[in-house]
Amino acid sequence: MLKKKSTDEIKDGDDIDDIFIARARGESIILLDSGTKTIECLSDHFPPNIKAGAVVHVIGRAISTGGRMKILCNSIEPVDHFSLDGLLKPQKKDLSTMREELFNAINSVKDEEIKALLTEIFNSEERFFVYPGSLEIHHAWKGGLIQHTLEVLNYALLAGGMYGLDRDLLVAGSLLHDIGKVLELDNGIRISREGQLLGHITLGVIYVSNRCLNMRIKEEKRDKILHIIASHHGKLEYGSPREPMFPEAFAVYHADELSAKLSRISEFVGAHKEDDFVYSVRDKRSIYTR
Amino acid sequence: MLKKKSTDEIKDGDDIDDIFIARARGESIILLDSGTKTIECLSDHFPPNIKAGAVVHVIGRAISTGGRMKILCNSIEPVDHFSLDGLLKPQKKDLSTMREELFNAINSVKDEEIKALLTEIFNSEERFFVYPGSLEIHHAWKGGLIQHTLEVLNYALLAGGMYGLDRDLLVAGSLLHDIGKVLELDNGIRISREGQLLGHITLGVIYVSNRCLNMRIKEEKRDKILHIIASHHGKLEYGSPREPMFPEAFAVYHADELSAKLSRISEFVGAHKEDDFVYSVRDKRSIYTR
Amino acid sequence: MLKKKSTDEIKDGDDIDDIFIARARGESIILLDSGTKTIECLSDHFPPNIKAGAVVHVIGRAISTGGRMKILCNSIEPVDHFSLDGLLKPQKKDLSTMREELFNAINSVKDEEIKALLTEIFNSEERFFVYPGSLEIHHAWKGGLIQHTLEVLNYALLAGGMYGLDRDLLVAGSLLHDIGKVLELDNGIRISREGQLLGHITLGVIYVSNRCLNMRIKEEKRDKILHIIASHHGKLEYGSPREPMFPEAFAVYHADELSAKLSRISEFVGAHKEDDFVYSVRDKRSIYTR
Amino acid sequence: MLKKKSTDEIKDGDDIDDIFIARARGESIILLDSGTKTIECLSDHFPPNIKAGAVVHVIGRAISTGGRMKILCNSIEPVDHFSLDGLLKPQKKDLSTMREELFNAINSVKDEEIKALLTEIFNSEERFFVYPGSLEIHHAWKGGLIQHTLEVLNYALLAGGMYGLDRDLLVAGSLLHDIGKVLELDNGIRISREGQLLGHITLGVIYVSNRCLNMRIKEEKRDKILHIIASHHGKLEYGSPREPMFPEAFAVYHADELSAKLSRISEFVGAHKEDDFVYSVRDKRSIYTR
Amino acid sequence: MLKKKSTDEIKDGDDIDDIFIARARGESIILLDSGTKTIECLSDHFPPNIKAGAVVHVIGRAISTGGRMKILCNSIEPVDHFSLDGLLKPQKKDLSTMREELFNAINSVKDEEIKALLTEIFNSEERFFVYPGSLEIHHAWKGGLIQHTLEVLNYALLAGGMYGLDRDLLVAGSLLHDIGKVLELDNGIRISREGQLLGHITLGVIYVSNRCLNMRIKEEKRDKILHIIASHHGKLEYGSPREPMFPEAFAVYHADELSAKLSRISEFVGAHKEDDFVYSVRDKRSIYTR
Amino acid sequence: MLKKKSTDEIKDGDDIDDIFIARARGESIILLDSGTKTIECLSDHFPPNIKAGAVVHVIGRAISTGGRMKILCNSIEPVDHFSLDGLLKPQKKDLSTMREELFNAINSVKDEEIKALLTEIFNSEERFFVYPGSLEIHHAWKGGLIQHTLEVLNYALLAGGMYGLDRDLLVAGSLLHDIGKVLELDNGIRISREGQLLGHITLGVIYVSNRCLNMRIKEEKRDKILHIIASHHGKLEYGSPREPMFPEAFAVYHADELSAKLSRISEFVGAHKEDDFVYSVRDKRSIYTR
Repeated sequence: MLKKKSTDEIKDGDDIDDIFIARARGESIILLDSGTKTIECLSDHFPPNIKAGAVVHVIGRAISTGGRMKILCNSIEPVDHFSLDGLLKPQKKDLSTMREELFNAINSVKDEEIKALLTEIFNSEERFFVYPGSLEIHHAWKGGLIQHTLEVLNYALLAGGMYGLDRDLLVAGSLLHDIGKVLELDNGIRISREGQLLGHITLGVIYVSNRCLNMRIKEEKRDKILHIIASHHGKLEYGSPREPMFPEAFAVYHADELSAKLSRISEFVGAHKEDDFVYSVRDKRSIYTR
Repeated sequence: MLKKKSTDEIKDGDDIDDIFIARARGESIILLDSGTKTIECLSDHFPPNIKAGAVVHVIGRAISTGGRMKILCNSIEPVDHFSLDGLLKPQKKDLSTMREELFNAINSVKDEEIKALLTEIFNSEERFFVYPGSLEIHHAWKGGLIQHTLEVLNYALLAGGMYGLDRDLLVAGSLLHDIGKVLELDNGIRISREGQLLGHITLGVIYVSNRCLNMRIKEEKRDKILHIIASHHGKLEYGSPREPMFPEAFAVYHADELSAKLSRISEFVGAHKEDDFVYSVRDKRSIYTR
Repeated sequence: MLKKKSTDEIKDGDDIDDIFIARARGESIILLDSGTKTIECLSDHFPPNIKAGAVVHVIGRAISTGGRMKILCNSIEPVDHFSLDGLLKPQKKDLSTMREELFNAINSVKDEEIKALLTEIFNSEERFFVYPGSLEIHHAWKGGLIQHTLEVLNYALLAGGMYGLDRDLLVAGSLLHDIGKVLELDNGIRISREGQLLGHITLGVIYVSNRCLNMRIKEEKRDKILHIIASHHGKLEYGSPREPMFPEAFAVYHADELSAKLSRISEFVGAHKEDDFVYSVRDKRSIYTR
Repeated sequence: MLKKKSTDEIKDGDDIDDIFIARARGESIILLDSGTKTIECLSDHFPPNIKAGAVVHVIGRAISTGGRMKILCNSIEPVDHFSLDGLLKPQKKDLSTMREELFNAINSVKDEEIKALLTEIFNSEERFFVYPGSLEIHHAWKGGLIQHTLEVLNYALLAGGMYGLDRDLLVAGSLLHDIGKVLELDNGIRISREGQLLGHITLGVIYVSNRCLNMRIKEEKRDKILHIIASHHGKLEYGSPREPMFPEAFAVYHADELSAKLSRISEFVGAHKEDDFVYSVRDKRSIYTR
Repeated sequence: MLKKKSTDEIKDGDDIDDIFIARARGESIILLDSGTKTIECLSDHFPPNIKAGAVVHVIGRAISTGGRMKILCNSIEPVDHFSLDGLLKPQKKDLSTMREELFNAINSVKDEEIKALLTEIFNSEERFFVYPGSLEIHHAWKGGLIQHTLEVLNYALLAGGMYGLDRDLLVAGSLLHDIGKVLELDNGIRISREGQLLGHITLGVIYVSNRCLNMRIKEEKRDKILHIIASHHGKLEYGSPREPMFPEAFAVYHADELSAKLSRISEFVGAHKEDDFVYSVRDKRSIYTR
Repeated sequence: MLKKKSTDEIKDGDDIDDIFIARARGESIILLDSGTKTIECLSDHFPPNIKAGAVVHVIGRAISTGGRMKILCNSIEPVDHFSLDGLLKPQKKDLSTMREELFNAINSVKDEEIKALLTEIFNSEERFFVYPGSLEIHHAWKGGLIQHTLEVLNYALLAGGMYGLDRDLLVAGSLLHDIGKVLELDNGIRISREGQLLGHITLGVIYVSNRCLNMRIKEEKRDKILHIIASHHGKLEYGSPREPMFPEAFAVYHADELSAKLSRISEFVGAHKEDDFVYSVRDKRSIYTR
């Protein structure tokens, strides 16, 4: 199914026959799409198979009460086939330009094994080019994953140039650090079961480890790439099972921090102009929005 | 080479021509074996290829100064082929009895996929049956890994019986939780490169993931087993990339804690009788040794 | 007074004349009993002597609004005499079987002083055999305290057998570790004043200390038992004024963890089947409920 | 035995026949007394009954090597009867003046039960008037315990006057907050077994609880006094099993902090004039000593 | 404008034409004044220039719904000129008495430079004598800042007398430790932009640093005073860029803690008599209110 | 005085008549210069005015014992006038090139007030162009402060370009974030008194605040620049009194982290080739050095 109208466009009295992402909350269901608003969906009873993150087909009518839009729901059903357009926020940079930039980086790699590994992976992994960087925290839009990845790459290469780091390893580590997200983010809109149980760091390590095995990548090279993936959250308490142990791993970790935090805080400032200082629950501090 | 005399048996004036484990410390090299003492090795210069954890062949003479034994070293060389006997502390339980107990547990598994997976792994992994549980922290002796594993199994099964948990999953999770140590503990006496860079949790996840792929284990089953391995340290800050998310994972985590801590503290009490209370640096408290 | 109908059985329009446990929340009062639901109690004004945890006699009428049951209250008064049946969730194991198991353990103790101490305490402390393990966190049902205590005992004895620990001390420490809860949990349904101000660990230490004084238990024995009670939360930040300092204290701490955590997580999984993953506020993570 | 010469007065070549406090460290024994220096005691072998904190009779000869004084020991034996003079640093305030100040405070109490409790305890507890406040951390001298207690009392009463707190409760809480130290500090020079296993907070709670029972102090009063003792370290991670829950408990906690920290830092500044800034390991920062 | 009627005095049906402090919350605006209640202000739309902390002129009508008072708002506008009376809670001690006590302390200073500095600052800083100690946390009433400051002074001087500290430095540090609050608390009722971006510690350091520069205070003296201001929260994680490094800084830190915590907890106890134990979110524990 | 021979060049038997940096350690004094080694200085007594960080003139003789070089000292005296050459490690990038790069950045600023502020500061602050970035932790060489500053600038500008940040503010924040180090690092070789008592963050805030006052920079601009300085350590526990509150502050914080950590870890790897993995105390982990 194709998305018709975003939550921002729905008006009082509109007939609704559209798809949304469901987020279960207590006794009603919250509906999301690429719009900035969420809409509460009211019904006498919901079918039991509406799980958080499911894409659902809703038939009903919009009503506005107390300044908030709601949908009186006649029917709600999970949908198996759908397009991300209209469900995810749209990309911020051109997708094909970013794809080209990524393959240019791969082609600049001198180590033949690494170049082959990257080529093999990114030629066969279309999800990487459309998925968001995360569901909510940063780069939460179509193409956000590759955009974030290229930001990390650029920071890491700038750092690598200053400190004489191994450029090929930096390219591999930057491009692959979040590859596990293609498994973690089911369809780009919900956390998959393996995403919940293992997380994108461990999924990425398994993913790349398998490819290395198949392509017979030399062990030390493989261990260093896997270490960069495993350590890219920088600290155990942020979910990395290992903390960075060589310069290229430090570079990717800090580049990832810079990219993720700046994306998040910029989005927050853009979305909050109601006061000079607005409290951000996620950052546990007030943010200056002027 | 075979070990001749332990550090506890060396006497002042003895001629030394034996193998030890080297642990690099500053300008001298510390030598270890299955004895309770460590011996400092003195030399005008050491060859550059003596790395921490290497097994070395030392020729020299023992001298006692200030109540401590040292070795004046004429020659020290890395050794490639050696037996763990005499280097590791000896097993505390009979190795073949423990092996039998482990296979009995495997044979009690009802789920055919899980039984096949465990049979395949433990039939092909001889290191598991001789390696220590860790280099220093707990079960640091020959056969310590399987002994620890069986302790975890017994606690987990007792817990599982009380709470109606999935017995097959508990057996799989208990037996495989530390399987990554066969890759982490190079020869059972030093941390391997991949052990340093990835750690036994991640190595175990990769190891079991590969076997599951080869044997086409069903995905949900695989994800649950991998989650138990990934979460068995219980908290992010202890190096688990995921915290336990279902009862069987909680059971293995706490069973592992109970086994590891009790092994460590019992060893400490056994080794320290010099006073009623002895400070344990690792536990950051005094231990009552009476 | 005796409980009539649980919150799960109340229907729209029912006349209510029954007892409940009150939990004060803002401007209405929440009512609980052995049912899984809580019911909000509405009134123009409440008498000032309705405190959190009080058992109250409510007269009124049930109404259902927005899918939730509420009680329009005509009268609400504290009740002094009541039975726990119908207020607490029912026991999960037979009370007299558990009592027998506990006395069997006491009778297996070889040290005459310890056996006498345990016999004296448990023969005179009927609250121990009916109280819950806690109000909400784990084993929150009638007989939960003894059930939890026996679980701890079984884990500790299994551990003690593996490591040659002092069996009599393990029995004493396991059976007495939570004895302070008979003072902390006023009537098994609210925290008493001394429970709030001192907590069950300190209350248990005072309780056992007094009994030891009266029975002239030898000092070292007494100090070790009191230490097990004092240290059984394992870490200062969990409220233990001392951390475990000998093997039997480690065993009881970890056995307590295993029993408490497994009870809690199993209850959570049993109560939450609305989605594959449900967020647990107490555990600060999603729990896999399939 | 009586102490003859302090470690500060011993000179190269002196014959030694004196008592010291032993502190075991590795293969030699460190000797302490009221002097500011510690002296290493060397011997071919020490009797096995020399435990840390024991008072020992040493016969030997002093030698100075590398700017440090050591004792070549001919004989070292534990001593049972000795005076604290010369072993502990001397008092900083007159002992009888402090005793008088304490009883004046007791006599100013209006509540007859509390006055009787305090009179009974302090009339029968001579250790309180000579013991140090702690072995090393603060008020580590003869009479330090009562000096610290009176400082806490004065801060708490000043605070109580500003905020209209319960004066009698403040006197009781201040005077009794560290009473457990008479049990924790064996002879004022070592930590006793019960001190190690239970700590002065729990020992103080037991001590005062017993006295209250014997004197039939009303329960609420008793619970508040016990809570002040239990919570006076202010935070769980500092060893208090409960955190302050009413104003008088907050007052005693912060008064204790002020007294203890100021004593410690003043001693440190007084003892370290070797540079403008000297690193304090205990405070994890440099201290300005000018 | 002058305040007419506090939120505690407003009754159902009252016509409202008064000033309040606005606190933005979601889609309505919360109004505060010196009363203990807050009132929700309802309107179809609010002008965009109503920011949190602004003083606003509201015209409307009070209605009581569900036991809570609200205002149906016809007009709401920011106000530039107003008196703090009726907006802030009233002083607890006489303002001119406190002013006199402060100048007496200044006049008791022996060091001429310090006396001149304090005289100059407090003669020219009228805000200090009327501002609250903080917006909510402690001493949140008119004159609260000077009241808190004098409490700190008294504790610090009592401590200084016991330990022979530098009295002049203690007076300066105590009186100036919170001087930055005159810049942080815009009009005493909201956090200013520089207060948000820099905080009162850094603002106080800049403020006093400038005065010292102008008055050519000797550098070491200035550095010590600035250090007391900078370190008076005691720990980095509480917002102090430096931790106390000499006794006078420790004294002011702990005196500040004692004053602030005792003010807060006394207010809490005074305001909560609805149950014996009331949970305090700020303290993360139940408080005993009897 | 001028430095003659580095610690790396001193040989057994050399006569020493040279300057060093003293670092006091216990009973000997450690000497440092631009060499990679430290040398212990032995003497019967040292003059009392040798403080940690002082530059000292040493006359004596070098002896090699146990593989370590020491100096038997005949005379050691503090020196007031000296050149940093030979005491600090030499610059890694050309000083005048870096100066030019810095002024180019200043000249690219569009905001006239900010350009004037930066021009004024850097035209009058020669220390900035020669001081190290820190004494030990990162960029610990001549010119390290400007090198680090330019690295931060480059990262921040790359980030700013991606996210449309305020370029002028980024230049000002990057160039000034560590300006307080010219006051903290006395002569570039020791921490000054004000550095110890206030730290470079607070010193930088005071420094820039004064300049802004003199040049009448607009208040909001000034507050934002001061906030970037105050928050550039990112977290309270790292010594920032404020955490970043707008995107440019986040950018400078993360750019600073990236620059500092990468400098430190690259130096560590370069200095440690003795084993594949070398434990770094500062990083609390092993570092892979291959």
